[in-house]
Amino acid sequence: MASVSIPSNPTFPFKCRAAVLKEYNQPLVIRDVLVDAPKFGEVFVRTVAAGVCHSDLHMIKGDWPLLSPLPMILGHEGAGIVVSVGPGVTRFQPGDHVIALFTANCGTCEPCQTGRPACCNGHSTRETGKHFDNTTRIKDAETGEGILSMSTVSLYSEYTVIPQEQLLPVKKSIPLNRASLVGCAVMTGVGAVVNTAKATVGTTVVVVGCGGVGLNAIQGARIAGCDQIIGIDLLQNKLDFAKQFGATHVINGKEVADTIAEVHKICPGGVDYVLDCIGNAKVLEQGFMMIKGGGTVVAVGIAPQTQMLSINAFMLALTEKRIVGSLYGSARSQVDMPRLLNLYEQKRLMLDELVSKEYTLDEINEGFELLKKGEVARGVIILARD
Amino acid sequence: MASVSIPSNPTFPFKCRAAVLKEYNQPLVIRDVLVDAPKFGEVFVRTVAAGVCHSDLHMIKGDWPLLSPLPMILGHEGAGIVVSVGPGVTRFQPGDHVIALFTANCGTCEPCQTGRPACCNGHSTRETGKHFDNTTRIKDAETGEGILSMSTVSLYSEYTVIPQEQLLPVKKSIPLNRASLVGCAVMTGVGAVVNTAKATVGTTVVVVGCGGVGLNAIQGARIAGCDQIIGIDLLQNKLDFAKQFGATHVINGKEVADTIAEVHKICPGGVDYVLDCIGNAKVLEQGFMMIKGGGTVVAVGIAPQTQMLSINAFMLALTEKRIVGSLYGSARSQVDMPRLLNLYEQKRLMLDELVSKEYTLDEINEGFELLKKGEVARGVIILARD
Ligand SMILES: [Zn+2]
Ligand SMILES: [Zn+2]
Ligand SMILES: [Zn+2]
Ligand SMILES: [Zn+2]
Repeated sequence: MASVSIPSNPTFPFKCRAAVLKEYNQPLVIRDVLVDAPKFGEVFVRTVAAGVCHSDLHMIKGDWPLLSPLPMILGHEGAGIVVSVGPGVTRFQPGDHVIALFTANCGTCEPCQTGRPACCNGHSTRETGKHFDNTTRIKDAETGEGILSMSTVSLYSEYTVIPQEQLLPVKKSIPLNRASLVGCAVMTGVGAVVNTAKATVGTTVVVVGCGGVGLNAIQGARIAGCDQIIGIDLLQNKLDFAKQFGATHVINGKEVADTIAEVHKICPGGVDYVLDCIGNAKVLEQGFMMIKGGGTVVAVGIAPQTQMLSINAFMLALTEKRIVGSLYGSARSQVDMPRLLNLYEQKRLMLDELVSKEYTLDEINEGFELLKKGEVARGVIILARD
Repeated sequence: MASVSIPSNPTFPFKCRAAVLKEYNQPLVIRDVLVDAPKFGEVFVRTVAAGVCHSDLHMIKGDWPLLSPLPMILGHEGAGIVVSVGPGVTRFQPGDHVIALFTANCGTCEPCQTGRPACCNGHSTRETGKHFDNTTRIKDAETGEGILSMSTVSLYSEYTVIPQEQLLPVKKSIPLNRASLVGCAVMTGVGAVVNTAKATVGTTVVVVGCGGVGLNAIQGARIAGCDQIIGIDLLQNKLDFAKQFGATHVINGKEVADTIAEVHKICPGGVDYVLDCIGNAKVLEQGFMMIKGGGTVVAVGIAPQTQMLSINAFMLALTEKRIVGSLYGSARSQVDMPRLLNLYEQKRLMLDELVSKEYTLDEINEGFELLKKGEVARGVIILARD
């Protein structure tokens, strides 16, 4: 990937283009927008690469209205280059390469202090779509209307303003269109196995849904030394990816009458962990039947806001089964992501193989169409290429 | 408690009396029974004290048909004295005082080897009601019919045959009618807090159901240094017990419109742990709304066999909540119970206060009536008193 230039003396409001979600279930609209100067503790970033993730698709579909007030600029997985910094920013300077983190870590709340920063509750930005001072940074260039920000990162904008604690520095030797993936799919998938499930050598894992997150759960299990690693999907091309990323077995849910029975054939008595990388209550329920006594079902994908999960309460206690949520792979981003990048440099974590398609910003809606069809492992929007 | 004598040269089959569950929802029937000699690895025990536990009541009510084939001698919490031992028994000799353990630990299965012996799957006795060789040890003295055994301990019989791995030696200085409680209520309640939830100093705990198990969850939380410890019940006398055992707050579910809101008033944002000591899917669902993000609901009581639990799949992943089963307090019996007995001797674990009523074997059905009414903390059947 060629080097990307950044404006040396940006003036604000800074005009650029962004993809805006104006209405659920409608294509994103490419608009000219005006970006405000970074305020205290904030960084003005040129977005270089941004992933097309199922979470963005959930937002588009209106599956999570709690998290997607409108209008909003989506894009929560990505990487870019620091253009300028606001007052109080000491860790970054213009030209730095950064990965965006979609959870802010205040550092002082209970989850932050007790090793679970992914659960940080020091900021309410996730629900409001606003920055920490409760205002927006981007407005429509024509109408002047303020536009909300997904997770205060808004990576589907060519330029964006991100709080400094939501940035991770990354070496310039790592291409930004690879590093970007670490910001969501890789961290979420690998972290669910390693941080949330704490899967150890020789344990057995089922991963349901072999898309961007699921493939990373699979390679997380491979890296963690898991024994049987079973990938389940409905699409053969995704199962081919699953094998490439480390699945020892794959099951095509369309081709078998009973996926639960298939899992028990491979691992009699059940598996240690089932990871639902789709975000579907039915998958969690099936997972409960796939795990052995003492096993754990991990909810990795986030289900639509109203979906209820139904499990047998008797079996829960009697067999010590567990159902646990995993947000962002229980990321300790500043610790975990450098480790993941090291694994990439050591060729133990696969990133290159993950990107199966790149789009321009103008092609973003095509990216979501192909995501729905399941034809790509991970699609990435390239917002800056010189 | 006065000393109890044991027969010095028992001849088999050994005649005694036992309470037999012949039909669901009917009183237990006191019958003369014949007890076979202990086989390889088994111990012939004179039962001295046996608790009246909700699990026995569930069996009587037919809530768990999977676990209660008929006819069966219930009683899974108790203590007694070794009368004689079968071949291959090296750890016990006549006169030893013992606590019965209601899960067998084969020592070689995966849960046994990986520190979770309460989930041992090396024996199928829990479902069959038979001893390891798939035969029964007790039969009706009149009809000759074989009678099944709850968890191969059958403590509602004056004499019983128990596999040696289901016995824990106990010092003679500890009264057997106190030691008996450790075999279920104490281990299950304290263990759910300490082993399953792994609650640490300063965390917050809700215990729903302040009976025998719930009071021990409360004192487990007190011993573990938990901060707010909230007991919830519908009966004022149980809430009084709860305070005595260490609850910092109590909520009478009959007197408030919304127990979830009451919990959030005491602990804004929710608590770290909710322990359902009743075994009810509705309580688990409420618990899910009482915990904070990252918190854990522990299913301690075992719900009726067909009860389904329904929770919001979106919130599960988004807030990293957890729902986990706890069987027998995730007991590592041979390790945990001596520790619990030490805490009793140090007057840090309350046992004396737990026993609010003692019955003779003939009064056993009255014991279950009072348990249903919630009038007792723990009732204990005294089967041998000289
Ligand atoms: Zn994502
Ligand atoms: Zn925080
Ligand atoms: Zn019990
Ligand atoms: Zn075992």
